[in-house]
Amino acid sequence: MTQKFTFDLQATDGQARTGVISTPRGDIRTPAFMPVGTAATVKAMLPESVAATGADILLGNTYHLMLRPTAERIDRLGGLHKFMNWDKPILTDSGGFQVMSLAGLRKMSEEGVKFSSHIDGSKHMLTPERSMEIQKLLGSDIVMCFDECPALPATDAEVSKSMQMSMRWAQRSRDAFGDRPGHALFGIQQGGVTQDLRAESAEKLREIGFDGYAVGGLAVGEGQEAMFGVLDYAPDMLPTDRPRYLMGVGKPDDIVGAVARGIDMMDCVLPSRSGRTGQLFTRNGVINIKNARHADDPRPLDEACTCPACSNYSRAYLHHVFRSQEMISGMLLTWHNLHYFQELMSDMRAAIAVGAFEAFQKKFHEDRAAGDIEPL
Amino acid sequence: MTQKFTFDLQATDGQARTGVISTPRGDIRTPAFMPVGTAATVKAMLPESVAATGADILLGNTYHLMLRPTAERIDRLGGLHKFMNWDKPILTDSGGFQVMSLAGLRKMSEEGVKFSSHIDGSKHMLTPERSMEIQKLLGSDIVMCFDECPALPATDAEVSKSMQMSMRWAQRSRDAFGDRPGHALFGIQQGGVTQDLRAESAEKLREIGFDGYAVGGLAVGEGQEAMFGVLDYAPDMLPTDRPRYLMGVGKPDDIVGAVARGIDMMDCVLPSRSGRTGQLFTRNGVINIKNARHADDPRPLDEACTCPACSNYSRAYLHHVFRSQEMISGMLLTWHNLHYFQELMSDMRAAIAVGAFEAFQKKFHEDRAAGDIEPL
Ligand SMILES: [Zn+2]
Ligand SMILES: [Zn+2]
Repeated sequence: MTQKFTFDLQATDGQARTGVISTPRGDIRTPAFMPVGTAATVKAMLPESVAATGADILLGNTYHLMLRPTAERIDRLGGLHKFMNWDKPILTDSGGFQVMSLAGLRKMSEEGVKFSSHIDGSKHMLTPERSMEIQKLLGSDIVMCFDECPALPATDAEVSKSMQMSMRWAQRSRDAFGDRPGHALFGIQQGGVTQDLRAESAEKLREIGFDGYAVGGLAVGEGQEAMFGVLDYAPDMLPTDRPRYLMGVGKPDDIVGAVARGIDMMDCVLPSRSGRTGQLFTRNGVINIKNARHADDPRPLDEACTCPACSNYSRAYLHHVFRSQEMISGMLLTWHNLHYFQELMSDMRAAIAVGAFEAFQKKFHEDRAAGDIEPL
Repeated sequence: MTQKFTFDLQATDGQARTGVISTPRGDIRTPAFMPVGTAATVKAMLPESVAATGADILLGNTYHLMLRPTAERIDRLGGLHKFMNWDKPILTDSGGFQVMSLAGLRKMSEEGVKFSSHIDGSKHMLTPERSMEIQKLLGSDIVMCFDECPALPATDAEVSKSMQMSMRWAQRSRDAFGDRPGHALFGIQQGGVTQDLRAESAEKLREIGFDGYAVGGLAVGEGQEAMFGVLDYAPDMLPTDRPRYLMGVGKPDDIVGAVARGIDMMDCVLPSRSGRTGQLFTRNGVINIKNARHADDPRPLDEACTCPACSNYSRAYLHHVFRSQEMISGMLLTWHNLHYFQELMSDMRAAIAVGAFEAFQKKFHEDRAAGDIEPL
């Protein structure tokens, strides 16, 4: 345990990297997947269960928390960690992305974004300075710069203009963040799918200087091929000795492809959201537990998985409680999905450490191609 | 662990009793409260969490399970215990009560009840013989006779007529149940709030002979005073050396009053249902976590409670996740309520064992009268 925020890159295999981010609240093994705890809870999970899946860090959402219960209230109550009973590291987003996707009546200016709450219509303003203040009130360990992610499709000129403003906001975020030992501020690269703009954005961020760097503006509908196209060059534009975070990614094959391209951290609501809708991620691809083929199947979801859903229940039970809309369905299926994602990260870390990431990827894709076990 | 179903009455204190029901699946300490696992799950709880609250036995619902996933399917999958990952005893109701309260298009005859499913409208028939068959397929440890509970208000003549038919159905249930070592069949006393009819019903049940006896037809809207009026005489009409089960009860003060009148077992959806609607049972009465007074309160629900909701979270957090309709709200609040109910039973067992049940009751009512702690 350290009192500083540090990143120790321990091994590389091709572009893939494995290491450890150390923080006063504990270590984060990379590549790391961060479950999303939007409203101070990872939906359908107790925090000790999230930790049991192997998660070293959670993501919290500035936009949701500022509206309810408010950052000031969480601060009065001792910070987000204490509030939600999670003592490991927390990364918070800046609120920028969710303001654009969720809030009503947005008005963007150089200063920031005015918007009305999707919960009660109340008026709010987010600026780089206010975002830094909120994330500090929450007690976030890794703070993200306030940025703008332009809606797609957008012209190069629009993407460039937006990126330039995000870089000015990055400087304002850096200034407002100040000096907070043990806490990290990450810059966010923008520039869409245009290599020159990505390079320009990276250059500006490096000039300002951050504790880590995110690749932003991806996973917003551009498709895996376009995303991988950017990841073929974007991570390399960022400092080697700092963690690289790909925001909002993703499906298991997105994650593997991103790690292969030098990404160290990711987050996504997919495992928890899919758990609630009956989509299960397994070594052999996606299983839809709602399908009638599972109704009489006494076998576990994945016989090799050690999560509670697979250890203690049949597909028939999981099918039954899903169809009956019982809460235990969301609880067990989310647990399985988060367990699967964390095991995927753990397997990748192990493979990279011994220089076997190529073999890992081959097996990963073969297992998926094999598909689910035959119905009985 | 025994291979037989036995009841060992260990101490009495006034009319209150404490003892142990032994079954091949484990002991049930009495007075016992049985959480309800309607559709093969105690809503919002993992079974290991239910066990952690101190529950020795669950209740399963014949009506729900026969419709979905069906008793035959559960039998093929190895029985209800394996299906829902609960290896302790299970008591199943007969389906009679829920057919009357939930199903559509009911048609009652001497043979049984024809009805249509509230889920898909499909046609079914429940008879004493079919109820015994279903409960056997489920693998229930304690099987309930199929009976009729007349709707209130009802005349004495109506209650008598219904009770007579329930007693004929009790005989048919006994005949159909057969000889199943290690499994118990409970008769159900009917007779409304009329002492003579209760006595007649008890006499008929004793002639047939059962492993335990339920007091049925109460907690159906007659009010606590009328219920206690019946419990002042009804348990005493039943054999002393067999467990006495009061069906569908109840609120904490109902439970304490019932135990004071010689009841050994109870079940109710109240702790789990109330957990989902934000009503919390505590030593100091009911707390509604939705109330704004909790929004900024850093204190636990009950500082003396050792459940996860009270050990790890503030009232402010529980308020926040309830208002945000997060699943963790139902999970934590249900856990607290079940923990409270089981602790209440445990405290009563300890008090009865040392002849201190009078003092227990005094303190129980004093604590409730004191009310919740003052707002900050
Ligand atoms: Zn699993
Ligand atoms: Zn509690």
